[in-house]
Amino acid sequence: MSFYSKFKNAILKNNSRVCVGLDIDANKLPVGLTAKKDDILSFSKSIIDATKDHVCAYKPNMAFYEALGFDGLDILHEVCEQIPSYIPIIMDAKRGDIGNTAAKYAKSIFEDFKADATTLSPYMGYDSVKPFLDYEDKTSFILCVTSNSSSTDFQKVKFDDKFLYELVAEKCNEWNQHKNVGLVVGATNPEELKTVRSICPDIPFLIPGVGAQGGSVKDCVDNALTIDGEIAINSSRGIIYASMENDFANAANKAVLKLKEEINSYLS
Amino acid sequence: MSFYSKFKNAILKNNSRVCVGLDIDANKLPVGLTAKKDDILSFSKSIIDATKDHVCAYKPNMAFYEALGFDGLDILHEVCEQIPSYIPIIMDAKRGDIGNTAAKYAKSIFEDFKADATTLSPYMGYDSVKPFLDYEDKTSFILCVTSNSSSTDFQKVKFDDKFLYELVAEKCNEWNQHKNVGLVVGATNPEELKTVRSICPDIPFLIPGVGAQGGSVKDCVDNALTIDGEIAINSSRGIIYASMENDFANAANKAVLKLKEEINSYLS
Repeated sequence: MSFYSKFKNAILKNNSRVCVGLDIDANKLPVGLTAKKDDILSFSKSIIDATKDHVCAYKPNMAFYEALGFDGLDILHEVCEQIPSYIPIIMDAKRGDIGNTAAKYAKSIFEDFKADATTLSPYMGYDSVKPFLDYEDKTSFILCVTSNSSSTDFQKVKFDDKFLYELVAEKCNEWNQHKNVGLVVGATNPEELKTVRSICPDIPFLIPGVGAQGGSVKDCVDNALTIDGEIAINSSRGIIYASMENDFANAANKAVLKLKEEINSYLS
Repeated sequence: MSFYSKFKNAILKNNSRVCVGLDIDANKLPVGLTAKKDDILSFSKSIIDATKDHVCAYKPNMAFYEALGFDGLDILHEVCEQIPSYIPIIMDAKRGDIGNTAAKYAKSIFEDFKADATTLSPYMGYDSVKPFLDYEDKTSFILCVTSNSSSTDFQKVKFDDKFLYELVAEKCNEWNQHKNVGLVVGATNPEELKTVRSICPDIPFLIPGVGAQGGSVKDCVDNALTIDGEIAINSSRGIIYASMENDFANAANKAVLKLKEEINSYLS
């Protein structure tokens, strides 16, 4: 099943547009858990069990697994296997390289890890993205306007009459021939959310930046969610580290439910 | 020892500005070698032994190791250990993510793999690069003008009076407070090599795109190498797959020597 079908089904089944970011930091596990593989997997299993009825996707972040050491990818593989098959996996990788290299990353992410989607950088242009888009059932979320403050360095610099992020959004429409392009648009950019939605009316948005980073959930819903334009609002630390005590799973459950209900409260 | 010192020493010791890209494709090993870990490591050892007297750096490409499966990072770790300690390792990763994630990639690349340098995407701006630059002895080569044809999509689009790649080059000067910024400038862009060198007179360039991609070695030397501005010209496939027969190591030796001598022939 394509990412998009799986994603829409999960939104309906769980009545949720929350994506939970599985940024598991081995040095920041709740009390009693160590940086060992078994504890990490026990933690991820508890988090997934506690949130799986309230998410539309999970987003493991490869950086956190690569930082676990040389068996990091093995741990990531097991985490992916813990995710129920009806919930799509967005592998957060932000890769971007020439074609033959991009093809290797795509193989790893889509074939070995069996992820349904990934995140990519647009800087190198179409031929760096194409090997991912050639997997027609998989969606690639291209960085457009990111949630960090340095997004002003390049993304918000203006070409003759448009910002770089607008040019990226326009290119993504061109690249969307298999209807498998998505965009990453940070919640900290409410105006840009609106602009990018007007450029790309039917491309799904992955929206990080609520919670710790300060983005407004209401702005995300008001400015980016339309009948054709679906969204997934991501929260990572705010959910998986909602508590550092023994009650972390229960706290994650409450946190994901709270965000889901907040999003739903703004649906018109 | 800092990347830059190690790099300069290797240039002097080996009288070479060739960087060999260790893009080991398990499905394209010379005759008699299989995709198994032992064969991959035997291949990499032979290639390194055959080229180590003629390089200024090695550049393993993480994509190729991640595509090897879940012990890919373990294999990459062993390949890094095969590289003589006096030759710097540039880990080709092209990462680019928000600060807390960038810090994880930096830890993996600089601490676990003990790489001396890496490659990064500039799209997300300064705070996505800073966690790498905080390792003052390690150099981060930022993508500026890449060697692929789609570099026209964004990098060569003009802002009011300058191209995006020029803006990236200017920012890299600002970011170079620890003298640990490098730039990736593709050999397929001879004019841009000259322009970027004029903007960044003392930043080292990592130059891919000669060989299979068609860039001119003479243009690289003429347009980018100055007394203050060092270069490393990368070749991957042209060296490690110089032969697919039993003589692959000897062929790699000849290929690296040929490129080294061609570069040196243009030194004035």
